[in-house]
Formats: sequence, structure tokens, C-alpha cells
Amino acid sequence: MKSGYTIGCDFGTLSMRAVLVRLEDGAILAEQVYEYPDSVITERLPGSGVELKGPGWALQNPDDWLNAMYTCVPAVVAAAKVAKSDIKGIGVDFTTCTVLPMDRQGTPLCKLPQYRSRPHAWPKLWKNHTAVPEAEDMTRADTQNHRHVFDDYGFRASSEFFFPKILEVLRKDEEIYNTAYTFIEGGDYVTYKMTGALVRSSCLAAAKAQYNAAEHRYPPKEFFRDLDPRMEGVVEDKHLGSIGTGASRAGLLQPEMAEKLGLCAGTPVCIAHADAAVALVGAGAIHPNEITFAMGTSTCHIMMAETKEQIPGMFGVYKDGVLPDYYTYEAGQDAVGDIFDWFCRRMVPQSYFDEAAARGVAIQKLLDEKAGAIPVGASGVMALDWMNGNRSILQDTDLTGMIMGLTLSTKAEEVYRALIEATAFGTRVIMEAFARYNVPVKKIFACGGLAHKSPILMQIYADILNQPISVTAVKQTSALSTAIFAAVAAGSRDGGYDTFDEAVEHMVQPPRRVYTPDPANVPKYDRLYRVYREMHDLLGAAKESPMKELRRIQRESIQ
Amino acid sequence: MKSGYTIGCDFGTLSMRAVLVRLEDGAILAEQVYEYPDSVITERLPGSGVELKGPGWALQNPDDWLNAMYTCVPAVVAAAKVAKSDIKGIGVDFTTCTVLPMDRQGTPLCKLPQYRSRPHAWPKLWKNHTAVPEAEDMTRADTQNHRHVFDDYGFRASSEFFFPKILEVLRKDEEIYNTAYTFIEGGDYVTYKMTGALVRSSCLAAAKAQYNAAEHRYPPKEFFRDLDPRMEGVVEDKHLGSIGTGASRAGLLQPEMAEKLGLCAGTPVCIAHADAAVALVGAGAIHPNEITFAMGTSTCHIMMAETKEQIPGMFGVYKDGVLPDYYTYEAGQDAVGDIFDWFCRRMVPQSYFDEAAARGVAIQKLLDEKAGAIPVGASGVMALDWMNGNRSILQDTDLTGMIMGLTLSTKAEEVYRALIEATAFGTRVIMEAFARYNVPVKKIFACGGLAHKSPILMQIYADILNQPISVTAVKQTSALSTAIFAAVAAGSRDGGYDTFDEAVEHMVQPPRRVYTPDPANVPKYDRLYRVYREMHDLLGAAKESPMKELRRIQRESIQ
Repeated sequence: MKSGYTIGCDFGTLSMRAVLVRLEDGAILAEQVYEYPDSVITERLPGSGVELKGPGWALQNPDDWLNAMYTCVPAVVAAAKVAKSDIKGIGVDFTTCTVLPMDRQGTPLCKLPQYRSRPHAWPKLWKNHTAVPEAEDMTRADTQNHRHVFDDYGFRASSEFFFPKILEVLRKDEEIYNTAYTFIEGGDYVTYKMTGALVRSSCLAAAKAQYNAAEHRYPPKEFFRDLDPRMEGVVEDKHLGSIGTGASRAGLLQPEMAEKLGLCAGTPVCIAHADAAVALVGAGAIHPNEITFAMGTSTCHIMMAETKEQIPGMFGVYKDGVLPDYYTYEAGQDAVGDIFDWFCRRMVPQSYFDEAAARGVAIQKLLDEKAGAIPVGASGVMALDWMNGNRSILQDTDLTGMIMGLTLSTKAEEVYRALIEATAFGTRVIMEAFARYNVPVKKIFACGGLAHKSPILMQIYADILNQPISVTAVKQTSALSTAIFAAVAAGSRDGGYDTFDEAVEHMVQPPRRVYTPDPANVPKYDRLYRVYREMHDLLGAAKESPMKELRRIQRESIQ
Repeated sequence: MKSGYTIGCDFGTLSMRAVLVRLEDGAILAEQVYEYPDSVITERLPGSGVELKGPGWALQNPDDWLNAMYTCVPAVVAAAKVAKSDIKGIGVDFTTCTVLPMDRQGTPLCKLPQYRSRPHAWPKLWKNHTAVPEAEDMTRADTQNHRHVFDDYGFRASSEFFFPKILEVLRKDEEIYNTAYTFIEGGDYVTYKMTGALVRSSCLAAAKAQYNAAEHRYPPKEFFRDLDPRMEGVVEDKHLGSIGTGASRAGLLQPEMAEKLGLCAGTPVCIAHADAAVALVGAGAIHPNEITFAMGTSTCHIMMAETKEQIPGMFGVYKDGVLPDYYTYEAGQDAVGDIFDWFCRRMVPQSYFDEAAARGVAIQKLLDEKAGAIPVGASGVMALDWMNGNRSILQDTDLTGMIMGLTLSTKAEEVYRALIEATAFGTRVIMEAFARYNVPVKKIFACGGLAHKSPILMQIYADILNQPISVTAVKQTSALSTAIFAAVAAGSRDGGYDTFDEAVEHMVQPPRRVYTPDPANVPKYDRLYRVYREMHDLLGAAKESPMKELRRIQRESIQ
């Protein structure tokens, strides 16, 4: 029986969550959350108060990340009442691609007085969207010159990717570009701060920086030269080279950092991972063709497989994305929980809030209950779930949400149910794409807030996908995953596990609940899905879609 | 200069409104509204408490109508402080087809103790929809046997029509059918009660009972026999024959009734008219190709023309519908104001109500203001206005509402504006059908609550239709129209006018406001209209529309 513990640090968009996990059985003995004081910076830079002009900004303060570590790690060790010498390893997962320029001494440029008021010196959060023109230029250059850089990323660059964000710095503030010793992902920055070693994560680099782990290379020089001759040598110039995979160690905890974290110097530190992708380990979905839905404000669908298939509209397919040797497939829906929140805030009348308050339940719980009582198809309402565009399979940010079947007697809960169903239909489109391209989904795991909070929603998903869905035992799936990575990074010699199979067998508990399809609902949803699919194709896939024309008109009328 | 007055009684769905109008200039000197105590009967019969089973019931209590007369007519005479001898005539407009069985003595069967608890003995309001199967059977019989009864009514019977309602009585409660001396429209019932003369209105009969005024005949015996041999002689058996047109007199006010109304016996009583159709007279739209929009919970589009064209999807085209000799075209949108009400009740969050309350304005006024500030096309939101089906041109009650272009930042006022625009686009579809079939609209008048309440809405209509719209001087357009009919029914010999031209010239004041298209918005709306039209055709006109399939699924899942 293993003794000892590992710590997983899960850096989200608004907060960091640390968990202290028992190696023996994966029990979470302590947990601590730290909300970032500067949260997401969208309007003015902290300190200087410099205004961020135009839309799309989403920056972060790197001190928030370190302070989160300094607060949470000692707190979980204290709360669990364990000896620091029993902490066998520590790991980090992070939003991606969240990237910052850093100098040779390891200081983020935004911390230097001379750059503090320069927006491009700050970390750009994954959802910073100011690099849309750069992403478009990259797509165009890639296509025109047949570089095939984005073939495994749905054939398109996204402004969320690494290199469009870097190109934007070069174009908008060349001094920052030139001064930067490196551009580094937030996750790598944190492990670097702990270990002093500049070892990047293949999970992050493959997901968002087009790093080809099978051939150990970034996009070719020519690709960067096509875009800007100054960027030709970016990989070497900016020291992007050193990459670790799987549960590689980034290094060992340095004494100064060990003191701040209340841990022992020399504790193994695992390389960082992407917060959504990593979840599959904590879900136990470590075998090929087992998919994990990380369901929150948006949903990520992560699956490993043994072969690489080019599935049109997949957000990414890359080797060594999570576990070594496998290919990781990533698909997503840009808004899921966000749609329900938007609906509750913008479309639900007060009487529902009054009823929820009188009964002492949350509004979404009340709506869940009312929506759950509606028989399949009985409302006649159907929606398209594109209120924040479509990431997979259509990959079109210009798509918008739609609701049809409205009558003068349509009620809020009927629209709410239609919105839930729309997100499930959207997932089914993705599942069918996997199947069509010979990467069929054999087992579904679900984690994230929605999976744990809404049994109605999960049952609808099981019915619509016609497959059982296992909801993870713990809510903190990504943080647990990261603790498991830390355990494997430690290895048996240092008190951890040598393989993922072994670690998962011990540290991942059976699903909290398995939702199985209701056979009475499956054929009804098959029929409704055909209607969804027809609307999907008419409005989303068709080149001359009225929905897209509406968006063009909107864009022109705003200019 | 004319001296004297007439009274117009406008019987709506929920209330009756009487106005006393000065012949000299059309000034409304007094007005009185009476809300029907029994309102619309949808669940239980008054008195007996008998339950109305199944959906679609909408009955009325005929005593409500008479009590409304007894209350309002003396009240307006008293309020205007005029001598009853100066009242030169009285007229009635009524919802249609609202029909009841009556015995030979003029008593509605529902007033007889033995029939009081029998639903089919009661007046069926225009929107009573229990006769859907009968309407479908009539359409089928008409088509199969080439009777052409409904060719001028969009080729289809509606459950709102006269004969489906009668057939339903025959099928469901034959004793009521057999006992009835006649079936009579509510408007005709009221004039009959005043005059003792069973003279029906060609306006009502042509609009909803397929009375062909050009050939002075109802549908042929064979048509009724096809449906049910017992109904073959319905026209003669049920005494439907005596018809008056235009401003014919139904008769003179009988002494007993004169006393109850506080008028002189012998006062001329004009035949009844349909409440929506009659509005064109009060709007001043008495020349060919001048259309009147009666805009309220729903919209009626009424236009007279010199020729009869078969326009697919028109709700009705009939001779002597309003003024004699002209053909009256009637189109409609089944929900307009109802859509905005539904949206306010079901989709607007409390913060808007709070803001409206803080500013002391109505919620719709607040939404108007916010929606009015959005530039054309800028919201990217578009709707289809079929929340209560489509009456013209598609004539399909299975169609439903749709909203697209929704994003996580879409606000209530953006959807609200899209709903207004959708109803205007719906009107444009109708206007284009008129034009395509050689009955172009030369001038647009608008009356009704919406036309008077919402300048934003009217401006959007003018921009989308690219034609000026004249809003009537008075709000009570139908009641004024009826007073004008009464003036012409009196004729100059009895102190009224001899022609409509003359009466309208004196009694209709210039428009309160003319909305002219904003040339900057017209091309933008032309482009948006093409998008609307494309969605209209994809979802509404296409036989294999996903919207219709959704409705079929709904119907089957409810069964």
C-alpha cells in the first residue's frame, strides 16, 4: 500500500484550485481555492490604468498565479495535517493558450517598470481575441503556400492559438517582441518558477502551438517567414525548444520556492498540462476511444486514440497531447453553461425567480425541474447552440444561436429544455464525426460543474447520444488529474507510481453516477436530431446561409 | 352644415365601445366602454358550471352584448348632453364570425333552461377553434368535388368560418341544430334585437360564410350535401337568406328597445359590419387600392379594389364586403401585439421592469425606446413572426415563431426590435402578393392600438414597406366608422349623408401623423428582408420544412 500524497494545482480562468490527494486511494484530503484579484483584465491595465482599446482583450496578472500558489499550497498541507516530507510530487494544469513574454532572468515583461503600461507585455489569456487578423493571415498564408501547419487543427488558425498571439506582439509592439527572451505559456511559467528549468509541456505546445510531437518540431521556418521575415527564427530566437511529455518532470522544487510553498526542496514537479485535456486522467478515460466531456461554461471533448485521422472541423489532433504515444483529439462547444446563464439572466421572467426564492432553490435548479417534466418533443421548441459560435465541427465564429417552434404559449422552461437539448445535439454532431472518420467513441465520461449539478441535463445527453455517460466521482477532476500526473512524475522510486494504469487504478474512484439512455426516448430524439441536423446544415453548413448573411449585415452596419 | 349625431357601437372580443359622433365634423363627443362580465368563456359554462372539454373553446354570453348596449348608449347620450331626437342613426360592428343558434322568438338557445348546459347552444366567438375537423372536412370535400367554394378564401376553410361552426353543432349536438330557427352572427343578432328584422350583413356573410354578393348566393346545396345530407338545405332551413349591403338599414329602432337605449323609436339602424373590415371607412380609405392596417393584438389588412384577383393565401376576397360594388380583400397576421405582450411577459428580465417603474413608464414604452436606439441591422437578430401561425400568405397554423442571430450578448431590446421588424416583414410579404397579382397598394392607412402607441414601430413599418403610412386621427376608428355607416344609413332625408364620399369628407379628420420612409434605412431593410424572405421560404413555404416536422413530432408526442 502506497503512503504519501501529491498536490495538484488547477489554474482556471478566474481562480486557482489546489488539492492534496492521497496516493493510496485518490482521496482529496484538502482543497483550497484562490480567486485572482485582477481576474480577467479587459478594460484597463492594473497599476498604470492604461485603457485597452477595442474589443477582445483578456489579460491576466502573473502575480495572481504565484500568489495563488503561495496561498493554496501551504493551506492544503496545513489543512490535511500531513508532513511536508510526505508530499511526493506536485503538478500544474493551466488554461491554454495563455502566453506571456518573459526576460532572460525569468521576469514577465509586464513586471518591468518600463513595460508595465504596454498591453502587449502582459499575459494574454486563452480567450484574448485581439489577434483575429493575425490568425486569419496565418490561415491564408498556410493555405496559399501549402504548409499544412493547420491541417490537424481543422485547417484554420485561431486567435486563441500561440503563434497568432506572438505575431500580434511583433506587429503591434515590436520592442516587446525583441526584448522578450521567450514567450511562455502560463503553465510552463509556473513550473519554471518552481524548478528554474525552462521545460515546456508537449500538451500545451501540441494543443495550441502546432508542435508536432511525433516529429519533434514546430511549424517550419518558411511558414513564419511567409508571415513576417522578422519572425522566421521565432522557435530558436525565442527559445521554444525544450519539450517534455506525459508525466515528465519539469525539474525539482528549488529551495526558495519550496520555502514559499511550505514543501521540501527537491520535490518532483511534473510538467504542466492543459486544464481541459488533463481531465481525462482524473476521469479514468486513459484508454483509446474513451472520451471525456469537461462540461462547464463551455465544453471540451477530449479523447485519445491510437491513430491519427484528419477529421474536418476538429479543434486539434496531436501526439503526446496528454499521455505519451497516443494521439489526443480535442473538440469543443464554445458555450454550454454560458448559454443557460445567458438565458437565465436575459430571458427568464421574475415570476420564476420568485418561485425559486420561495422554495429556496437556485433558478437553474427550478428550471431543471420544470424542464425535466416536459416529455421529449412535447414543447415543439428547438434551438441551435451557437450563441458563441461553433468550434466543432463547423468551426465558424460567425454562427449564432437560433430558437424555433415558439408560440404564444411557449414558456421559459420549454426554451430552457430546448437549449439543453441543442447543446446535446451539438455534441452528437461531434460524436458522429468521430465515428465517420474511424475513431468511434466507445465510452463516455463527464466531469465539470454541469455534469455534477444537473441530472436532467445528463439524462438528456445520454438519451440523445444513445450511450451511457459516467460522471466522475469527484468534482475537482482536473486538479485530481494533475495530482495523478505528479504521482507518475514522482515514480515508484520516489514514492509515486510508475504507470498511468497503476496510478489511475488506485487514485480514480468509480463513477459517481452512470446515466443510461432511456430506450423510450432514444427514437424520439433520433427524429428530433434529424430536424436539428437539417437546421444545422441549412444555417450553419450552407455557404449561402441566411444566418451568415445576417451576420455580414450586422458587421457592416456597425462599422 | 349638418346638425345632429350618430352612434357607433363597436363590439370587440372583451368589451363593447360606444361613441357618439357629431355629423358635422366627426368629433367624438362621448365614449363609453363596457367590459363583458363573462368575457371569453373557455373552461366552464356560466350558470351550469358545465366543463368545456378539450382545447379551443371560446364562447360568449349574448346577454353581455345587450347589457353593453343598455349601459353605453344611454351613457354617451347623457355625457354628450344632446337631445335623443338629434341622434340620426345608430350602427353596430362586431367580431366575426361569432355565431349563435336562436329560436323563432329571437331567443338565443343558450338562454332556454333546457339548453343552458349545452356548450353548442352558446355563441361561438370568432376564435373558437373546436371546429378544426369540420373545417378540414369542408376543405377536402370542396377540393375533391370541385365546388370552388373556398377559391376566394385562400382555397381553404377555416375553423373561424361560419359553416364549419354550424356543421360542428350538427355533428356534436343535433338537437340544438334541429331546434335552431336560425344561426346568426353576433352583429346581426344585435341589429335584429334593435329592429326586429332578420336582415343579415353582406359584410359578415361574405367575409366568413362564403356568401357571394355578386351572384347573391351562398355555397350550393351540393356542397353541403357532400358533407352531411342533413345539412343540404341549411340556407333555407336556417333562414340565412335576407342580406343587406353597405349602409343599408337593418330597420328602425323598435319602441321597447328605444326605451332601453334612451333613443327615439324609429331611429334608423344600419346593418352590422365586421369590426376589422369596417375600420377602413373611419380611416378614410374608401377608394380602391387604399389599404388599412388595423393593428392590435393581431393585424387585419383590408383593401378594396375594383377587380377580383385570386391571390394565393389571401384570407378572403368578396364583393360588397364593406362598401357596395367594390371587392374587399382581407389579409391578416394572427399575432402582432400579442407577440410583443408574450415577449414582455415571458422573456423580459426584471431589471427592465424595475427601470420602467423607476421612470414611471410602461414596459413596452421602455423597450420601444431602447429598441428604437438600435441602428438597422446592428443587433444581428432576426425573427419569424409566426408565434400564432401564419394567416397570410402561407395560411398555415402549424408554423411557429423563430428567433435567430442570438449571441451571449444579445439583449431583450434587440430581440424586441427583431420581433417588431418580423411583423413588418410579414406585412411586406402580403403587400408584395397584392402587387404581384395586380392589386397594388397605393396608399396605406393604419389604425388600432399599436399604430397610435408606438412611433418606433410605425417608423420601422414605413421603412420596411418603403411607403408612407398615415395613422388615423382618432383611436376609435372602428366605432367612428360605424357611426359613419349610421350617418349614410340615415341619408340626407333623415339628417345624415347620402354618400360615403360625402360622409367621410366631413367626418374623417386628416391623419394624426404620417410616417415617411427614412431613405437611409430603406436599402438596409431591403437587404434584411431578403434574409427574412429566405427563412420564410425555407421554413414556411417548403413542404419538407424542419419547422413543420418539429410540429408533427410535437403533435405525436402529446397524443
